[in-house]
Amino acid sequence: MSKNIYPLLDTINTPDDLKKIPITELPKVCEELRSFIIDELSEHPGHFAASLGVVEITVALHYIMKTPYDRIVWDVGHQAYIHKILTGRRAQFHTNRQYKGISGFPKPEESEYDAFGVGHASTSISAGLGMSVAANLKQEKDRHIVAVIGDGSMTGGLAFEGLNNASINPNNLLIILNDNQIAIDPIRGGMHHYLVNITTSRTYNQVRFRLSKLFTDFNILTSGKKRKITQITNQIKASFARQSNIFEGMNIRYFGPVDGHDCMNLARILNEIKDYNGPKVLHIVTKKGKGYKPAEESATEWHAPGKFNKETGERIISDPCGQPSLYQDVFGKTLLELAEKNDKIVGVTPAMVSGCSLNFLMEKMPRRAFDVGIAEGHAVTFSAGMASEGMIPFCNIYSSFMQRAYDNVIHDVALQKLPVVFCIDRAGLVGPDGATHHGMFDLAYFRCIPNLTIAAPLNELELRNLMYTAQLPGKGSFVIRYPKGKGVFCHCEWEQPFNELPVGKGRCLKPGNDFAVLSLGSIGNTATKAIKILEEEGWSVAHYDMRFLKPIDEELLHTVAKKFNRIVTIEDGVISGGFGSAVLEFLAENGYQASVKRIGLPDRFIEHGTPEELYHEVDLDVNGIANSVRKFLSKQ
Amino acid sequence: MSKNIYPLLDTINTPDDLKKIPITELPKVCEELRSFIIDELSEHPGHFAASLGVVEITVALHYIMKTPYDRIVWDVGHQAYIHKILTGRRAQFHTNRQYKGISGFPKPEESEYDAFGVGHASTSISAGLGMSVAANLKQEKDRHIVAVIGDGSMTGGLAFEGLNNASINPNNLLIILNDNQIAIDPIRGGMHHYLVNITTSRTYNQVRFRLSKLFTDFNILTSGKKRKITQITNQIKASFARQSNIFEGMNIRYFGPVDGHDCMNLARILNEIKDYNGPKVLHIVTKKGKGYKPAEESATEWHAPGKFNKETGERIISDPCGQPSLYQDVFGKTLLELAEKNDKIVGVTPAMVSGCSLNFLMEKMPRRAFDVGIAEGHAVTFSAGMASEGMIPFCNIYSSFMQRAYDNVIHDVALQKLPVVFCIDRAGLVGPDGATHHGMFDLAYFRCIPNLTIAAPLNELELRNLMYTAQLPGKGSFVIRYPKGKGVFCHCEWEQPFNELPVGKGRCLKPGNDFAVLSLGSIGNTATKAIKILEEEGWSVAHYDMRFLKPIDEELLHTVAKKFNRIVTIEDGVISGGFGSAVLEFLAENGYQASVKRIGLPDRFIEHGTPEELYHEVDLDVNGIANSVRKFLSKQ
Repeated sequence: MSKNIYPLLDTINTPDDLKKIPITELPKVCEELRSFIIDELSEHPGHFAASLGVVEITVALHYIMKTPYDRIVWDVGHQAYIHKILTGRRAQFHTNRQYKGISGFPKPEESEYDAFGVGHASTSISAGLGMSVAANLKQEKDRHIVAVIGDGSMTGGLAFEGLNNASINPNNLLIILNDNQIAIDPIRGGMHHYLVNITTSRTYNQVRFRLSKLFTDFNILTSGKKRKITQITNQIKASFARQSNIFEGMNIRYFGPVDGHDCMNLARILNEIKDYNGPKVLHIVTKKGKGYKPAEESATEWHAPGKFNKETGERIISDPCGQPSLYQDVFGKTLLELAEKNDKIVGVTPAMVSGCSLNFLMEKMPRRAFDVGIAEGHAVTFSAGMASEGMIPFCNIYSSFMQRAYDNVIHDVALQKLPVVFCIDRAGLVGPDGATHHGMFDLAYFRCIPNLTIAAPLNELELRNLMYTAQLPGKGSFVIRYPKGKGVFCHCEWEQPFNELPVGKGRCLKPGNDFAVLSLGSIGNTATKAIKILEEEGWSVAHYDMRFLKPIDEELLHTVAKKFNRIVTIEDGVISGGFGSAVLEFLAENGYQASVKRIGLPDRFIEHGTPEELYHEVDLDVNGIANSVRKFLSKQ
Repeated sequence: MSKNIYPLLDTINTPDDLKKIPITELPKVCEELRSFIIDELSEHPGHFAASLGVVEITVALHYIMKTPYDRIVWDVGHQAYIHKILTGRRAQFHTNRQYKGISGFPKPEESEYDAFGVGHASTSISAGLGMSVAANLKQEKDRHIVAVIGDGSMTGGLAFEGLNNASINPNNLLIILNDNQIAIDPIRGGMHHYLVNITTSRTYNQVRFRLSKLFTDFNILTSGKKRKITQITNQIKASFARQSNIFEGMNIRYFGPVDGHDCMNLARILNEIKDYNGPKVLHIVTKKGKGYKPAEESATEWHAPGKFNKETGERIISDPCGQPSLYQDVFGKTLLELAEKNDKIVGVTPAMVSGCSLNFLMEKMPRRAFDVGIAEGHAVTFSAGMASEGMIPFCNIYSSFMQRAYDNVIHDVALQKLPVVFCIDRAGLVGPDGATHHGMFDLAYFRCIPNLTIAAPLNELELRNLMYTAQLPGKGSFVIRYPKGKGVFCHCEWEQPFNELPVGKGRCLKPGNDFAVLSLGSIGNTATKAIKILEEEGWSVAHYDMRFLKPIDEELLHTVAKKFNRIVTIEDGVISGGFGSAVLEFLAENGYQASVKRIGLPDRFIEHGTPEELYHEVDLDVNGIANSVRKFLSKQ
């Protein structure tokens, strides 16, 4: 192998370097970038298929636009790897998504080329529009703003709100619609259908061209009906101009569809349209995983494949045999089991079929499993509609994405006391996806909502039994939040007969005399280990698993408060307003004077790394908890 | 005047009664309903213009559909007055929006005819789709589900998410698109433009008809180009079928536009299309305020006009002279003043220009005031985009609507520490709009978000100075929440020179020795009165206005906690996780053992009534507070 495997890339540290390369060489740059991404991501896991899909458009954008003066907003942001490599971060790219390394998403703090922070989907049009309107107000007429959005993100209502608003204030936003016909799981929905039609019908652009030719052709017709025909075809023309495309119908100029893997052509088109006034869409068609056969064939599997053998395309997956199950699989398998017993049960997910393991239900009972696309608000209100007709929807949404459906939970579910079971996946710190994806706030933001039951299982078996409990009659609106990844049982030990858990009741995990630890959810397992250390140091510690944040177990709290004047609360949610606060509220309301130490996530955003690294950083690992407790005890 | 002024209406207590009336008599029913609404609402204020716009469609729907077995979901719900009158609530209609009276919105608890609870916009398609999918799963093939949505609500992303999802699962949802070209304020945005085009162009339906005729006509042409022309026109036909309308492009069958005030025709069309399989849209064109001249001419003013003289159309507005200003006007006028001094300032509202008083800025500086339509998420992310380019957006959103942009605040603003100033109007109990509209949760749901400064002014002057403070350099992401309605100063006394308020600092309103009251925001004025009563009873009470929930004034709290072992906190937000909890957290963290009584809104949804009635009900009026404090003191 040659020493210099990236001859062109080695000359490119910034977009300015890229601009020095002749346009005819761009395909070679793309080739090298593709190799680089395959080399890097086979060793250092990350978002793979999306990166391969946007190689050409990224190169073309940085070739034509004057970044960082011009702004590129990458929707979701996991498609921004090529962008990072071209903007001075190639040398650090092996630290991608690692603790203290570069972020897997654009981050203004990290680089001036990252115009807007992202992580969640569908924000780019709104943010880009704000930027473009601002540029206009500031008389910066030469500043280009580009929003790059995948068709998967187009299902999010926010993207539509942005589009709807794009034509009414002066702006020159350029929207690149990256149409790869897949989000993480294949996209379903009308908008997708609509885009496919624009793309695959031979009509749209060709017909507009031919139509004008037809008008000319009429001139040589000698029929007496010429006038009438002209009149009608003029109407047709007007109709095309105004309505034949949703973008143009909304006064947004539309270009495309064009091949998103023809870099030179993309550069030429961008150069031609970038200075057109007003909002505009360039519709490009790309292939997720482009240039790496296994990824092209199965983009969902290769969304974030982990390590892989780049030669064989074999994914390096550790053998799950004897390992604890994932909470996700417990959810997926249990839901299927419950659905088999209770025909009122349906499953709903906003575009996370594989991530949350709804696929178990979807494969067996496709009519009762609903993937609504990236549309969290709709997922909740749609569930509410089903619940109002007597169904029991299990609506699975990641904790940080649930923030997008907050009002739907309040207004459409809790206010009407509808029996929707919210399964909140990815609660707590999720790891390499970082600040935008941690499930930090759910305990606090759910707790203030009336009529909600909020539970957090200690382990897989508890998750299973909480799911069973939630679908029993009369349980109302029910939240079950649990973390990403492995539980604590050996493989499948959790597969036990269902057991109803009393709502609003916690339990004593171990008795003790010196002080009490109250924990909520799976962090209780870490607490157990910390308690073991403290007991070895001579303390006698009582440990309670509260299981429910709401209604909180007041009977248990009375018992604890009467016995102990030192209480420690432990949660893997933000410390402001969460579980610990609920305990403080109970104690104050009932006149208890115990000293309380609340242990939880700090009141700041937390970056990326492995969950272990991050829990260590915030003192929520075994030693961190033990230290916090020691410090608390020493003050009393 | 005849005794029997509603001869037909008097025979109609339920939709079954309506069905007995011959179709030719329906226009007379509509006429009587219109008179009834004018009679009632001139005396008992409510949502007026919208009600007049939907008289015919409501009558037609209940005439054709078998409600309550068939479901009608009314988007937003303030258009449901006619529906309420036709479904057994005419006799109670004079209690509309009054304490213990009927709700101004559909409410399943109130009537089996109210299929889904609403109050916020854009939910009907998602909820209706859930219902229709459920009906399908339950094999209830004869059950019709209808969502009635105004074009104003169509700007909300949730409506789009619902539309996008409508074609992918078996359902027979009928969407009535009530196109009145106005929400509360006139609608702006691409979708509106799009609908106007469908409606006003003579092309859409006519052309489809004429086009097919043209194909026929070609048969009599003798030109040699016939084959080519046929080929091209076939493409045109295909294009029309697939793309010429966003609804049809999304596989939703489209009917219309039709006159929404021709009741007989509406009934005939509904009867014809109701059993068509699959999702479908009926596009009707109506006029807000239809049938009452003054309202037709100025629908915004007549959205909810208050009492009026029905003969003259004169609105009965009490003279504001010598009255306190509205917080809304203080916001609007202050923003204009600030914008005149600081050219970075812009104003943003999601469709509440007049409600929040952004009209002051919009009239003087139209380029710097943005009404983005009913699109709260976009309002926030659009503001974030502007802020990232150096602008200072004042983004005004009602407290309960802010729940719809929760993730946008976290993900797009707070995480990036962008200087957006959120002015949260309608905080606390709003009165007659009831449970869906109270601003109960903002203190709790904002408090857990890192990087936010959260303030609540005691009065109009404080609001003004907080707004001034928030736009000073380096203040970051800033929340200012304030109530609806009148402040405490005499007219315009608040118009004083700007004064920076130190961030995170409260102040002592009055010293005292027995116990301390800490209040946050305008409820502090009620607290002052309650304290006066308690002082008359012999207590010496210290009163602190905290002004900031976050960062909370720790110095002040240390002073208070050192001096007092009895502390009362008062807030007009929900008691779980709010201001009182923040005080408890501080005390616990710092090892203080004071007894604390938290006074705030209870952990339940609160219905409609006047603010006075509701604050009385929840013991947050002067006597309620005094009583709670007495009870607390008696226990110590």
